[in-house]
Amino acid sequence: MLSYWNDYPTIQSKLQTVCSLIEEQLCVRNKDIQETLIEFARSGGKYLRPAYFLLFSELGDPAKKDQKQLIQIAASIEILHMATLIHDDIIDDSPLRRGTVTVQSKYGKDIAVYAGDLLFTQFFDLLTQAMNGSSYLGINAASMKRLLLGELDQMHTRFNKQETIEDYLRSINGKTAELFWLACIQGAHFGKSAEKIETLAGQIGRNIGIAFQVYDDILDYTADQYILQKPILEDLAQGVYTLPLILAKEKNPEVFAPYLAKESELSLEEAQKVAELVVTYGGVQKAKDFAQRYTEQALQGITKLPEGQAKEEIKQLTKQLLQRTF
Amino acid sequence: MLSYWNDYPTIQSKLQTVCSLIEEQLCVRNKDIQETLIEFARSGGKYLRPAYFLLFSELGDPAKKDQKQLIQIAASIEILHMATLIHDDIIDDSPLRRGTVTVQSKYGKDIAVYAGDLLFTQFFDLLTQAMNGSSYLGINAASMKRLLLGELDQMHTRFNKQETIEDYLRSINGKTAELFWLACIQGAHFGKSAEKIETLAGQIGRNIGIAFQVYDDILDYTADQYILQKPILEDLAQGVYTLPLILAKEKNPEVFAPYLAKESELSLEEAQKVAELVVTYGGVQKAKDFAQRYTEQALQGITKLPEGQAKEEIKQLTKQLLQRTF
Repeated sequence: MLSYWNDYPTIQSKLQTVCSLIEEQLCVRNKDIQETLIEFARSGGKYLRPAYFLLFSELGDPAKKDQKQLIQIAASIEILHMATLIHDDIIDDSPLRRGTVTVQSKYGKDIAVYAGDLLFTQFFDLLTQAMNGSSYLGINAASMKRLLLGELDQMHTRFNKQETIEDYLRSINGKTAELFWLACIQGAHFGKSAEKIETLAGQIGRNIGIAFQVYDDILDYTADQYILQKPILEDLAQGVYTLPLILAKEKNPEVFAPYLAKESELSLEEAQKVAELVVTYGGVQKAKDFAQRYTEQALQGITKLPEGQAKEEIKQLTKQLLQRTF
Repeated sequence: MLSYWNDYPTIQSKLQTVCSLIEEQLCVRNKDIQETLIEFARSGGKYLRPAYFLLFSELGDPAKKDQKQLIQIAASIEILHMATLIHDDIIDDSPLRRGTVTVQSKYGKDIAVYAGDLLFTQFFDLLTQAMNGSSYLGINAASMKRLLLGELDQMHTRFNKQETIEDYLRSINGKTAELFWLACIQGAHFGKSAEKIETLAGQIGRNIGIAFQVYDDILDYTADQYILQKPILEDLAQGVYTLPLILAKEKNPEVFAPYLAKESELSLEEAQKVAELVVTYGGVQKAKDFAQRYTEQALQGITKLPEGQAKEEIKQLTKQLLQRTF
């Protein structure tokens, strides 16, 4: 994980400390769960959210910062992210996550349910240590709730052939953009930035989160990959219709209707055909344009941040993450 | 639910308010989840934990109390309890809870995972509203963690033929007694009792919780019921060995060994035979004596509480709950 951060001297060693704190938090009496969680923590998550949190925390007044508090909050964000991933994999019955087998496919749903629950308690526990008395405690609780409601939205709109761009946006706003928003706004707040910067940080985070998820959904459809991409076939068969499909069928509903009508009966070949049609009817290109607008808004916001090394690294990370070539 | 509390005038109407607050908290955008949760909330839980919380909160100085805060905390305890029940039913694959079908058997594990998660967030959310800045926030986080570790202990010791009374006690201490402890100690604290009373309240709560769980486990084995009791057969086949069995086989391991060796292959008839043997070898009687000692300790503690209507109702409720006739 840490080699990813070689070009980010401001935060690389801090991320290592976050990593150690997370592993410390995962030490529990039950060895099955402990091993499961530590293995999961080490399985290649890039710690993007704690990284954004730490970078934004660098913008404020160094004299006022509490480094221990910052590390705890950075860890709490990643732990919350891990908890939602583990429970999502139960819902999706996903065999793979980050290229390795998921907790529930390796250890069963019993361990996966409790492993996720335990992470929720660690998240709560870290926050009570880090910010008891702060209004951000309530903000974290509300954020966790929006995160879950985002997941529920996605579940609820399965096989919804009328799903609109607004539905999709609402779902990814909760599911993905929420945590990027939280990471950036909290970073600015606990890094003791001015209130104006705090609000700006939140906006930047939300734009990054939306663009990030759209690109993620595009990757499933990019022409040279889709044949080998399991996720897209699974997503389609599970009724999860993402932006490229929504945009492609917007003006050509009749092309997609017969396939989508099959719902979970969609065959592998048919899913591949749908993926081809999404590309043919411009869904991928339109989704790229869509993500690009959010990326530009994020970069535009970043230009307004206080000058310094942290600002440069925020810009660099955002470009690296979002200005992908396909 | 509320008719159960007809003889408890001190708290009956407050429990009604708790009930309304809980239903309010369950109103979320996703209608499937909302209906599921409200149905579950109405399905006959007795609100024992909020009741103990409210009764103990009555002992302190009335002038210093914040009624809104007390209602929020009472609701948070029940919501945490509901969350753990829903996730436990996923682990156990239980078809029934409180005589009605469980969330996961009616709506599937997807809804059940998220429904439980959403309740965890509501618990967290209510606490940040009720007690931000209080040391009890960290106590709640730690308590939630012990609750989960108790469940994990139970899962971990499945089919453990060497399970000791200590293992069992540790598991139910976390799984059940923890929440009774929390309800009573928080009640005394936020009801503005003296610190001595707060500690005493916690001890009383823990004793009640242990006795409560032991009686619950005894009920599975009582002679005139066991033939019809599904739970005991399920528990045995799932390798959950509770106190009556542990005590019965302590001095007669050879009687039980051949049955327990079959683990999940134990047939219905064999499970019934094990239940009979538990009674024959004194397991039920010894477990009753065991529970009785904790009940007496609880009642002994209650005599030391400040005089008044609340103390009388705490005594009455504890007797009603724990001095069962078999």
